[in-house]
Amino acid sequence: MSKKEIPASTLARLPRYYRYARDLFGADVFRISSTELAAMMDVTASQIRQDLSSIGQFGLQGYGYNVKDLFYGVGDILGLNKGISAVVVGLEGLGEVVASQTMFALRGVMLRGLFDYDCMIGREISGLTVMNMMRMEEFCLENSIDIAVLCVPKELAPEACSIAIRGGVRGIWNLTGEELRIDRNFPDVTVHNLNLGDCLLGLCADLNMKKG
Amino acid sequence: MSKKEIPASTLARLPRYYRYARDLFGADVFRISSTELAAMMDVTASQIRQDLSSIGQFGLQGYGYNVKDLFYGVGDILGLNKGISAVVVGLEGLGEVVASQTMFALRGVMLRGLFDYDCMIGREISGLTVMNMMRMEEFCLENSIDIAVLCVPKELAPEACSIAIRGGVRGIWNLTGEELRIDRNFPDVTVHNLNLGDCLLGLCADLNMKKG
Repeated sequence: MSKKEIPASTLARLPRYYRYARDLFGADVFRISSTELAAMMDVTASQIRQDLSSIGQFGLQGYGYNVKDLFYGVGDILGLNKGISAVVVGLEGLGEVVASQTMFALRGVMLRGLFDYDCMIGREISGLTVMNMMRMEEFCLENSIDIAVLCVPKELAPEACSIAIRGGVRGIWNLTGEELRIDRNFPDVTVHNLNLGDCLLGLCADLNMKKG
Repeated sequence: MSKKEIPASTLARLPRYYRYARDLFGADVFRISSTELAAMMDVTASQIRQDLSSIGQFGLQGYGYNVKDLFYGVGDILGLNKGISAVVVGLEGLGEVVASQTMFALRGVMLRGLFDYDCMIGREISGLTVMNMMRMEEFCLENSIDIAVLCVPKELAPEACSIAIRGGVRGIWNLTGEELRIDRNFPDVTVHNLNLGDCLLGLCADLNMKKG
């Protein structure tokens, strides 16, 4: 089945499958049944079978899934086997936390550069020296960077995004809290806005609904 | 319409409506048409009309929505007018960033306590002194805390969650990266796991799909 035919709902669940497959593979588990995986992930076995059959062939009836094939197969659909590279922009607060975590390495995403406008320039984080934003466009072009993670203050978000796009970046992960939309002149650029405050309110809404 | 009848998909969009209504209200905009709001939010006007009619009566045909009513009405469904209170657990890294942001105050959620196991105890963040985790259960019970935001290292996540639940907390916002599920003995507790790494991979997946 071609990538184009993977349902969006399945695609949205793949990062979680990837995480479980990675942990199982790391724990030297070689195969797992849909029932076992369903119990671990707290979903139904039929959902697992449906999702995984829509992305590939990872096992045989009655045998279970081959964990290694699953891990690499899901990683392939996520594009991780092609060497995705990223930069983090804005290293105060959330940016420093994101750049310090093993988040990138654990997922096969290469953190290649760190950029800031201000006093963080010159600091060393995760083995990288924070560079001046002035250098970002050129750096991204020269190194074919795929993703820019934006953690600058809200008011600087549009500018940081524009610089990334001029640098040829195709994916913007925007953690600034300022909602960004991409100019229709750049249909190839994908923006994911993650607003932590909205996530907090989603929990508030659920609590309030349960109160009845 | 009772809260129970609000479609889950609409409910999931309410935090975003809340944010736009708050910003409009703060900018002294008194009314706005569904077309104007749709253009701002980059959704269709019919989606706006459908969502907002399912949660209340915020305007008249041809007049537009009353921004103040919308702001308080959405806040009411999110439970924000009842005084939701929260604690942050684990103040190193992400916890310190989350506790330092205006995220809570901007949304009418009261940040009431900060807890840590370790060297952060005694530090002052956002006007609150970080307390020892040993005191958390009692503090939550005494202050009827609604939400615990978990930012402890992954391996401590289950314990921090248990302490919060014993303290009567009904909402767990889990940012640790360790997936938590609630014991079926506690049906009233809601857990939202936010895994930043999964969000990053979601962007990778979209980029890879676009590559074709």
